[in-house]
Amino acid sequence: MLLVPQQGRLVVTTELGVLEAAPGQIVLVPRGMAFKVALPDDVCRAYVCENHGAPFRLPELGPIGSNGLANPRDFVAPAAAFETEPGPYELIRRFGGRSWRCQQPGTPFNVVAWHGNLVPLRYDTAHFNTIGSISFDHPDPSIFTVLTSPSDTPGVANCDFVIFPPRWMVAEDTFRPPWYHRNVMAEFMGLVLGQYDAKPEGFKPGGASLDNTMVPHGPDTEAFERASSAELQPHKLADTLAFMFESRYRLRPTAWAMQPARLDAAYAGCWTALADRFDEKNR
Amino acid sequence: MLLVPQQGRLVVTTELGVLEAAPGQIVLVPRGMAFKVALPDDVCRAYVCENHGAPFRLPELGPIGSNGLANPRDFVAPAAAFETEPGPYELIRRFGGRSWRCQQPGTPFNVVAWHGNLVPLRYDTAHFNTIGSISFDHPDPSIFTVLTSPSDTPGVANCDFVIFPPRWMVAEDTFRPPWYHRNVMAEFMGLVLGQYDAKPEGFKPGGASLDNTMVPHGPDTEAFERASSAELQPHKLADTLAFMFESRYRLRPTAWAMQPARLDAAYAGCWTALADRFDEKNR
Amino acid sequence: MLLVPQQGRLVVTTELGVLEAAPGQIVLVPRGMAFKVALPDDVCRAYVCENHGAPFRLPELGPIGSNGLANPRDFVAPAAAFETEPGPYELIRRFGGRSWRCQQPGTPFNVVAWHGNLVPLRYDTAHFNTIGSISFDHPDPSIFTVLTSPSDTPGVANCDFVIFPPRWMVAEDTFRPPWYHRNVMAEFMGLVLGQYDAKPEGFKPGGASLDNTMVPHGPDTEAFERASSAELQPHKLADTLAFMFESRYRLRPTAWAMQPARLDAAYAGCWTALADRFDEKNR
Amino acid sequence: MLLVPQQGRLVVTTELGVLEAAPGQIVLVPRGMAFKVALPDDVCRAYVCENHGAPFRLPELGPIGSNGLANPRDFVAPAAAFETEPGPYELIRRFGGRSWRCQQPGTPFNVVAWHGNLVPLRYDTAHFNTIGSISFDHPDPSIFTVLTSPSDTPGVANCDFVIFPPRWMVAEDTFRPPWYHRNVMAEFMGLVLGQYDAKPEGFKPGGASLDNTMVPHGPDTEAFERASSAELQPHKLADTLAFMFESRYRLRPTAWAMQPARLDAAYAGCWTALADRFDEKNR
Amino acid sequence: MLLVPQQGRLVVTTELGVLEAAPGQIVLVPRGMAFKVALPDDVCRAYVCENHGAPFRLPELGPIGSNGLANPRDFVAPAAAFETEPGPYELIRRFGGRSWRCQQPGTPFNVVAWHGNLVPLRYDTAHFNTIGSISFDHPDPSIFTVLTSPSDTPGVANCDFVIFPPRWMVAEDTFRPPWYHRNVMAEFMGLVLGQYDAKPEGFKPGGASLDNTMVPHGPDTEAFERASSAELQPHKLADTLAFMFESRYRLRPTAWAMQPARLDAAYAGCWTALADRFDEKNR
Amino acid sequence: MLLVPQQGRLVVTTELGVLEAAPGQIVLVPRGMAFKVALPDDVCRAYVCENHGAPFRLPELGPIGSNGLANPRDFVAPAAAFETEPGPYELIRRFGGRSWRCQQPGTPFNVVAWHGNLVPLRYDTAHFNTIGSISFDHPDPSIFTVLTSPSDTPGVANCDFVIFPPRWMVAEDTFRPPWYHRNVMAEFMGLVLGQYDAKPEGFKPGGASLDNTMVPHGPDTEAFERASSAELQPHKLADTLAFMFESRYRLRPTAWAMQPARLDAAYAGCWTALADRFDEKNR
Repeated sequence: MLLVPQQGRLVVTTELGVLEAAPGQIVLVPRGMAFKVALPDDVCRAYVCENHGAPFRLPELGPIGSNGLANPRDFVAPAAAFETEPGPYELIRRFGGRSWRCQQPGTPFNVVAWHGNLVPLRYDTAHFNTIGSISFDHPDPSIFTVLTSPSDTPGVANCDFVIFPPRWMVAEDTFRPPWYHRNVMAEFMGLVLGQYDAKPEGFKPGGASLDNTMVPHGPDTEAFERASSAELQPHKLADTLAFMFESRYRLRPTAWAMQPARLDAAYAGCWTALADRFDEKNR
Repeated sequence: MLLVPQQGRLVVTTELGVLEAAPGQIVLVPRGMAFKVALPDDVCRAYVCENHGAPFRLPELGPIGSNGLANPRDFVAPAAAFETEPGPYELIRRFGGRSWRCQQPGTPFNVVAWHGNLVPLRYDTAHFNTIGSISFDHPDPSIFTVLTSPSDTPGVANCDFVIFPPRWMVAEDTFRPPWYHRNVMAEFMGLVLGQYDAKPEGFKPGGASLDNTMVPHGPDTEAFERASSAELQPHKLADTLAFMFESRYRLRPTAWAMQPARLDAAYAGCWTALADRFDEKNR
Repeated sequence: MLLVPQQGRLVVTTELGVLEAAPGQIVLVPRGMAFKVALPDDVCRAYVCENHGAPFRLPELGPIGSNGLANPRDFVAPAAAFETEPGPYELIRRFGGRSWRCQQPGTPFNVVAWHGNLVPLRYDTAHFNTIGSISFDHPDPSIFTVLTSPSDTPGVANCDFVIFPPRWMVAEDTFRPPWYHRNVMAEFMGLVLGQYDAKPEGFKPGGASLDNTMVPHGPDTEAFERASSAELQPHKLADTLAFMFESRYRLRPTAWAMQPARLDAAYAGCWTALADRFDEKNR
Repeated sequence: MLLVPQQGRLVVTTELGVLEAAPGQIVLVPRGMAFKVALPDDVCRAYVCENHGAPFRLPELGPIGSNGLANPRDFVAPAAAFETEPGPYELIRRFGGRSWRCQQPGTPFNVVAWHGNLVPLRYDTAHFNTIGSISFDHPDPSIFTVLTSPSDTPGVANCDFVIFPPRWMVAEDTFRPPWYHRNVMAEFMGLVLGQYDAKPEGFKPGGASLDNTMVPHGPDTEAFERASSAELQPHKLADTLAFMFESRYRLRPTAWAMQPARLDAAYAGCWTALADRFDEKNR
Repeated sequence: MLLVPQQGRLVVTTELGVLEAAPGQIVLVPRGMAFKVALPDDVCRAYVCENHGAPFRLPELGPIGSNGLANPRDFVAPAAAFETEPGPYELIRRFGGRSWRCQQPGTPFNVVAWHGNLVPLRYDTAHFNTIGSISFDHPDPSIFTVLTSPSDTPGVANCDFVIFPPRWMVAEDTFRPPWYHRNVMAEFMGLVLGQYDAKPEGFKPGGASLDNTMVPHGPDTEAFERASSAELQPHKLADTLAFMFESRYRLRPTAWAMQPARLDAAYAGCWTALADRFDEKNR
Repeated sequence: MLLVPQQGRLVVTTELGVLEAAPGQIVLVPRGMAFKVALPDDVCRAYVCENHGAPFRLPELGPIGSNGLANPRDFVAPAAAFETEPGPYELIRRFGGRSWRCQQPGTPFNVVAWHGNLVPLRYDTAHFNTIGSISFDHPDPSIFTVLTSPSDTPGVANCDFVIFPPRWMVAEDTFRPPWYHRNVMAEFMGLVLGQYDAKPEGFKPGGASLDNTMVPHGPDTEAFERASSAELQPHKLADTLAFMFESRYRLRPTAWAMQPARLDAAYAGCWTALADRFDEKNR
C-alpha cells in the first residue's frame, strides 16, 4: 500500500515501528502487515494506492547508470518499536476484494525486534534526482519513475509511481509540455502542491484526473498556446509536485467518485478551444 | 568498425553503397565488408574503433522510455550502388590479429541490389537527444551512450561509444563536472571539436586521453577550482563534441602511441596543484 | 486487430495512411488506432481476430536461421495520408469488453506525418517462405506461424496466426496429413480459398471450424483412407490457403455462431466411418 | 568428443559401456571419461571434433515445434558393462592443451552400474527428420543442425554439428544450391559418402574443406551453371551425407594438414571460370 | 492432476498404461488424458490436486546441486498397455470449470504404443532425498518441494507440492518447529500418516487444514511449549508423512467442505492458551 | 580479493574504514580499492583468493528459500574512518597480471565519508546456516557455498567459495564422506582448523590441496574403510573448518608451490591401499 500525503502529516504505526510522513514524502506498507494511521494535524488528506500485483521496487536504471532517480539509500525503515498495552483492538483486513473486521484482545503492535526485507518505508521526493532532456524533445514520463510494480510482461507495468517534481526545463527547438498522446497505460494523476504544467488552471492540489487506457489527452488550450509561443529560455518549474499512478489495467472509478459533486463534468472542455490548423484562418 | 571523423570529410564506399560523413557524424561498417575511404578535403583526421566483440547496437533505454538518446530512425543506410570498372584491386584484410593483402582482377564494389540488417550506417550526433540531470548531481557517463557493444556479462560492455555533445548544465547544489573516480572501465577519450569541461586546457581537438582500468582520474585543477566557486546558473555547453570508447578490457597503447613526440608526459601534472584540504590553510 | 480478407478487397484508412488488401493478404491495425474500411468490390467477406494480448510479432526462427517464414521486409506500412474535410464523424470504440460510440466534428484521419514502430501493416502470404518436412513425418503446425502474440508463458501463445499456403508434400514412409491429436491450444480455422488437405470435402472457403482446448480431432475419413493408401510421390498442394488462429485460451462461440443455420451439426460425423482396426475384418 | 565414422566401424568402450558405430552414425563421449576405440573392419577412417566449450546438446527447435531434426529418443546410451582383467593400462589424457600419459595397474573400465545424464551416446543420422524449403529460397544451414555447443553469446555457437543428409529439393523460382556468402562462422566440412551438391566434383568422401571466418565461398562453377539452367522439378538428393563443424572461432589448421601432399592448392580455382556478368558477352 | 493416496491403493488406467499407487506414493496424470481409477482395497481415500496452471515439474535445485530432493530417475512411467473390449464407455471431462459427460462405443484405452514427454508418472516419496538444517534455524518449507507448477512470476508458484517425510531434526540453539508466520502463499495441508510436528494432536491422517493467504499461523500451544523446553538432541521424526499444496492464489473452500460436520470450528482454539509474555507472571 | 585468515588476526585498513578479522572470519576487499593489512598477533597466516572475474556475491538459494547458508545481514561493512598524517606512502598495484609500485606524498586512507554498494566486508562463518542431508546420500558441495563469482555460463562458476563448517552428519543407509568423483571444477582446498573428514590424517591446518579439472579423487583409504564400517548414528563434526576455492578454470601452481619442500609428493599414496573389490579375497 502506497500512501501519498497531500495535506497534513501521517503517523503510521506498523508492526515493525513508526513512520511519520508529511506532504512531499510517501509511505510504503508491505502486504499483510497491520498498521494504523494517526493524523496529528488539523486537516489531513492523502492519496492511497492499493497494489494487488508485485511489490513496488526501484526501476532498473538502464543507461542512467548506477545513481539517479530514487536512490536506495533514501528509503527509510522504522526503528523497531512495540506497545504492551492491553487491547481490545479491532482489525480490518482486505481479503478477496472485501473488507473483514475482527476484535482481538491484545495489540498487534507487539513485535520487539525484527530483521528482513519486506519492511515499511518512507521516501522524501526531495531526494529524487530528476533526469530529463538537456537538449530537445519531451521524454516519456517513465523517466520520472520513483517505484514500479512490474507485471509479468516487460514494458507494461502493473503500476508505476511517477512524480513531476520541481525541475529545470531547458529543451530547445521543441514543444516543452507533454505531447498529445493515446496509449495503453491508464494514467491516474494527483497534485500534491503547486501547478501542473500541462493543465495550469484545470487541476487543483488534492484533485485527481484519470486518462484511461487509450483515451487521447494532452495539454489544455491555455498550456498549448503558451508553450507554442514562449521563448525557450531555461525555466525552473518550482513549488510543484504532481504524480501519476500508471497502470496497464483499465481503471474503473467507484460510484462514489462518479457522483456529480465530485466529478468535473466540464473536463473535456479544456481542449475545445484548440484551433483547427487546417482552417486557413488559423495558420 | 566505427569511424569518427574529426577533421575533413570521409567518403566511404562499401559493397552496399556510399556514405559521406563530416565531423560530428560517425560511420559504422559491418565486419567482413569491403570498403574504401576517399578524402575529399585538404586535411582529414578520424578516430577509428575496431570492434572485435558483439556488433554495436543501441542501448536499451530503461526508464528513458521509447524515445531518447540516439533514435533508430536517424541511422542512415546507403542506397545500393555498384561499379563495373575492371580492376585490379588490392584488398587488405584483418584476420587473426594480422593484416593480409591480395590482388583481385575486378572490383569488390559490384553488388547491384541488397536487403538485410547488417549494413553500413551513418549517424549525425546532432540528432542525439541528450538527457541529463535537471535537478542535482552528475549522472554516470553511460547516460550519453550512443552505441554499445555488450559483452556476455550485463553491465560491463565490450565497448560503449559515448558522446559529450552540446547540452545544458542546470544541476544545482552540486559539483557539476564529472566527479573523481576510479573504475573498472577503461576510458579512451577523443575530442572532435571545442573544449571538454573537465579538462578545459589540457585536451585539444584531435588528441586522445586514456584513463585505463582502475586508474583514478577527474577534473584538472583549473576545472575543479572553477566549478567549486562558480555560481550555478543554467549554462549551455555549446560548440563542443568529445567522445569516449569505454571498455571493460584494459587497453594497451601501441609502441607508436608511446613515442615521446606523441605522448603527453606532463599529463598527470594537471592534478598536482589540487590543494590538500586537511591542511588548515586550505580550508 | 488482424484482418484476413476472404472475398473482395478491403481499403483500410487509418490515422497513418491507407492500405488496400485482397484475399491472400492480411492487415494488422495497432490497438487504439482509428480506422475505417471501404469495400470496393461487390462482395466482401473477411475473418477478424481481435487481439487482447501482446501485439502480434514475428516468431523467433530458431534453427530456421536468419531468413524464412514471414520476412520482416515484406510487411508494408502505409505512406502518410490525411483528410481535411469537416465531419462529423461517428467513432465506435471497444473499451472494457463493450462498444462505445461518439460523434466528433472533424475527421480522425488528420495526421500529416508520423514516425514510429506501431503502425498498420499489410502482408501478402505469397511471400511466406514455407518450410516443412523434406524427409519424413508431419511437423507441428507451428512451422507455418506467420505472426505470434505470445503470452507470458513461453510455449503457449495468446494467439498464433498460422497459414497453410500452397506447398510441396514430399515426406516419405509416413502419413502425410496432420495426425490425430488433442492438445492445449484451441484451434480456430478458416479457409480463404481452395481445399484443406485434412478435410477435403467438409470445409468450405469462408467457413470456420473450432477444435477447442483438448478436443481430439484429425483428418476426416476420406482424407484418412486416401492418405493411407496413396503412393507418396512429390505432390504440390496448389491453389489453397487455409489459416488458424491458435490460442492457449478456450474460445467461447457467440450465440450468433451457435444458431442452427450457421452451425454444422453433422461435423463430428466426418470421423464416424473410420474403421475399428482391432476388429479382424478391418485389418 | 564427437566421432564421425566415415569408413569402417568403431567399437567404443567407455567407463559406462560399449557403443558400436558405423558410417552414418555418430558417437559422443563426455569430457573426462576414459574410452578406447577398436576397429573391427579392414579400413577405418573417422572425423573427430574435440569440443572445449559447452557440451553438445539438441538445439531449441523454435517454430519447428516439439518434434523434428534430431529427436531425443534416437540417442542411444550404452548398457552398463565392465571388465575385471588386470592391466596394466596406459592412459592418455588431454589436459591444458597437451597430452599426458600414465600407466595404471588395473582397467579403467570397471564400473559395474551407473545412472546420470552425462553419458556416451550414439545417434544414427538416418533418424534425422530433415526440414527445409517446400516453397522457394535456400534456408540457412542451421536448419540442418543435429547438435549445438552454444557459446555464451546467443546466435554464435562455439560449435554446431550440421548434416546434409538425403533429402528432397523442391524449392521453385530460385537458385537451389547454397548461395555465395561470407560470414562470421568458420565452416569445416567433411563428406561421409556420396556427392555434395555445391561441389559435385571438387569434394571427395573422407576429404575436408575449411571456409574460415569471413572467407567468401559458394558453389563451384559447375554447380552454379547447372543450377542456373536446371528445370526445377522435385529432385531427391540420395546416397549422400556431408556434414559441417561450424564455429564462431577461427580455425587454425595444423602444420600436418598444411603439408603439400594433403592440401588442395588448386581449391580456389573452382570459382575462376565463373563468368563476369557485367561483361556484355556473358549476359 | 496429482493424486495423493492416503488409505488403500489406486490402480490408475490411462491411455498410456497402468500405474498402481499405495499411500506414500503419488500419481501425476497429464491434462486431457483419459483415465479411470480402480480401488482394489476395502477402504480407499486420496487427496487430489487439479492443476490449472503450468504442468508440475521438478524445481531447479540451486545450491543443492545436481542431486537431491526428488530425483528424475525415480519417476516411473507406465509400460504401454491397451484394451480391445467393446464399450460403451462413459467419459467425464472437465472443461471450462464444469464437468461434461458423453458415451462412446469403444474403449479410450486403445493406444498400442507411444513415445513422448507428457506421460502419467508415479513417484514414491520414500525416494525423496530430504535436505534440511544441520546447524541451526528452521528453513522455509520450499526446501521440501517435490514438484512445482510455477506461475509466470518467479518466486510465487501457481502450486508447489511439498512433503514432510521422515527426517532427522538436529538444529541447535533454536526453536525447531515451523515459526509463526503470515505469508502470501495459501497453504493446504494433508496428513497421509503419523503425526505432524507443529500440530501433534490437532491434525489427523486423512484430514486437511487450510491457512489461506496472509492468515497468520504456527505451532499449537502444545507444540510451542514442548519445543521451547525440549533438550535439542538429534531426533528422528519417523512414521510420518504430511504434505502441502501451496499456492499464490487464495483458495476458496467448497460449500461441501464448509458444512458443520466437516469443518473443525474449534481450530483457532489451538493457539488460545499461548501465554502473553509481556505479562510479568509469564516470563 | 578474498582473505581467509587461518592463524592470527588481520587488521585491514581500507579507504572506507577498518575491519579486523580472526580465523573463522573472512574479509572481502573490492577491486581497485587501496588497503593495508596489520598483523597484531605473533603469528599470522591467511589464504588469499585474487578474483579476476565477477565480484563475489551470495548464491541464489533456490528451494532453500528466503533464508539459509550465508545471510546478507551477517556481512559487516566498516564505519568510515580516515587518516590525515602526511606520507609518503608506497602503493603496490596489480595491473595486467603484474605488480606495479609508486610513491605518493599523502595517505590513500583519507576518505571522510562514503556511501555505495562495493564496500569491504567481513563475514563470520559461525553465522553460516549449514544445510545438508537429513535423510540419506551426500549432497554436492555446492550446498556449502558461501559466495560465488559466476562466469557467464550458468552452472560453472568462475570461483565458488565453499566451506565445511561444524555440522551434524545424520544420513542413513549411505556412505557419508564425499564420494569418489572426477569433474570439471578445479578444487583448491584449505584447512583453517581441525580435521577434514575425507582426509583425517593427510591434510593439516594451513595446508592446501589441489584436485585440478577432471582429476579423480575422493576419501583416502583410512576414511573409506572407517566410513564403510561405521554405525550410522547422528554424529557432530565439531571444531573444524575447511574450505574450497572451486573454479571452472584449470589452476596452475606457481613454481614456488612446486618446490620439493612445499609439495607433498606422497599425496597420491593415500589411495594406494584401497582394496580391489573384484579380487575375491577382498569381498
